[in-house]
Amino acid sequence: MAITVVGSVAYDTIETPAGRKDRCLGGAATYFSLAASFFTDVRVIAVVGEDFGPEQEAVFLAHNIDTRGIERAPGKSFFWEGSYLENLNEARTRNTELNVFAAFEPKIPEAYRDSEFLFLANIDPVLQRRVRDQMPGVKLVAGDTMNYWIKDHRPALLEVLTGVDVLLINDTEARMLAANNNLVQAARAILALGPRILIVKHGEYGATAFFSFHSFAPKGESAEHPFRAPALPLEEVVDPTGAGDSFAGGFFGYLASQSALTPSVFRRAMFYGSVMGSFACERFGTERLQALTRKEIDDRFLLFRELTHLD
Amino acid sequence: MAITVVGSVAYDTIETPAGRKDRCLGGAATYFSLAASFFTDVRVIAVVGEDFGPEQEAVFLAHNIDTRGIERAPGKSFFWEGSYLENLNEARTRNTELNVFAAFEPKIPEAYRDSEFLFLANIDPVLQRRVRDQMPGVKLVAGDTMNYWIKDHRPALLEVLTGVDVLLINDTEARMLAANNNLVQAARAILALGPRILIVKHGEYGATAFFSFHSFAPKGESAEHPFRAPALPLEEVVDPTGAGDSFAGGFFGYLASQSALTPSVFRRAMFYGSVMGSFACERFGTERLQALTRKEIDDRFLLFRELTHLD
Repeated sequence: MAITVVGSVAYDTIETPAGRKDRCLGGAATYFSLAASFFTDVRVIAVVGEDFGPEQEAVFLAHNIDTRGIERAPGKSFFWEGSYLENLNEARTRNTELNVFAAFEPKIPEAYRDSEFLFLANIDPVLQRRVRDQMPGVKLVAGDTMNYWIKDHRPALLEVLTGVDVLLINDTEARMLAANNNLVQAARAILALGPRILIVKHGEYGATAFFSFHSFAPKGESAEHPFRAPALPLEEVVDPTGAGDSFAGGFFGYLASQSALTPSVFRRAMFYGSVMGSFACERFGTERLQALTRKEIDDRFLLFRELTHLD
Repeated sequence: MAITVVGSVAYDTIETPAGRKDRCLGGAATYFSLAASFFTDVRVIAVVGEDFGPEQEAVFLAHNIDTRGIERAPGKSFFWEGSYLENLNEARTRNTELNVFAAFEPKIPEAYRDSEFLFLANIDPVLQRRVRDQMPGVKLVAGDTMNYWIKDHRPALLEVLTGVDVLLINDTEARMLAANNNLVQAARAILALGPRILIVKHGEYGATAFFSFHSFAPKGESAEHPFRAPALPLEEVVDPTGAGDSFAGGFFGYLASQSALTPSVFRRAMFYGSVMGSFACERFGTERLQALTRKEIDDRFLLFRELTHLD
């Protein structure tokens, strides 16, 4: 089943202990699409500037990603510059230029409307809501957000959450959204805001899924038991940019590729999320995702299983 | 098979967001012994003062722990006071009084000498070494240490490491010991110092075992692949004191209870370590370990399996 994703397609300048890369193709929707494309059909809604040409579009087309929803606008694409020199786990933003994104009005191509899965990548919750409302027929909606929206755009974000089935955020964001430092209590508070499933991403320690009572995922009375997927302890983290979006792409892409959302499918989706997040860190920008093969993905899936399973 | 453990038996005054407790029975050897006692015979080597009476000894005896190696000395027992008010993951030490521990000369009772397993809890590496040297016949030696010894007693610590099979330390300690912030690289550097296995404890995120090539644990060519055991996301952490020592007790106790050290036994031992660590946090001091049953332990083991396994 096809996924429509709305989010940023951007250029990133990134500095990490491994080096520096100027103007890599990036953005949440780019990482998400590439990661999800290994599992299912992906359709992107975004806006880019005149600096986005055939060479960039070819990256999407090479992975069979539908780009008809990528709008061209006069001016430059969204630009972000960040450094991981002090802390590999958290970027220090040096510069953000919204550019064409400042006036973004997401339009959904007719050909996207039969998508059964919708992913709202980290953008203004007002835009997330607008896209959500235009796709009432989707079967499953997942979304991401960030500190900035949680702190300064809370009412709009809370409205979005009522229409999201699966929320994927990191530890800091979960604690901030719930105003509670205990993760289990924070998860319960967030599940009361709308999502049926909360996935908290722990970076190098993996991710934990928490379920509300009415969730489809776990069986019967264990509905409130969380599930934890591992992350791989990496020998060398070249660039953690986009790891969370790649997790979301692997997770949601695998879900969309399956015919039923059983507990077992959900667990595998979490593992595939971790797998795609770990690949994303291995090279700058989307380089590793671009070069990846399904065989490498499945091999790492087995490695993660071996890493965590008793037998 | 019996485990001999050398370490502190102490009194702790602890303040956490859940409250405050004065002079709980604590110390690394106490937590370790109680946790390991659910799996195998445990023998303690420690020194206590005149404030350690029959009531405290009864805690050990109720768990069949051999206390003949607990020496009584004039004066007061080791005392520690710490607070977790700012950070539940790391104690701020308010006061440490070595008391009788200052002149501790570990003596090994004759009845302990046939122990096949030895655990060197976190004490002065000079004392760890002295105990290690007096028990040349042990089959497996595990040990713990802390920042203070890594920073200021490095040569003595490095000597101990040459005689330790399994080193259990936390993330910060591993990075400090190896002077390398990348955990995989740090692990490799530490394994070159002597231990065949390094277990890095991640607190609420579980623990990762790294193996040297000659390790018994994993099969064949996967000898360098790590193994990760989960920790339970806890609704309420009352007091994290002793969680690491309880992990060590569950891990080593289970190993000692098995007839062979297969990869499967090793993995189960890691899970039992996590199980015991998670119980330790649920009440102040050793209260939860004292009240625990083997049935509760095995139920949580299954919960951890369910938390992390695909099927």
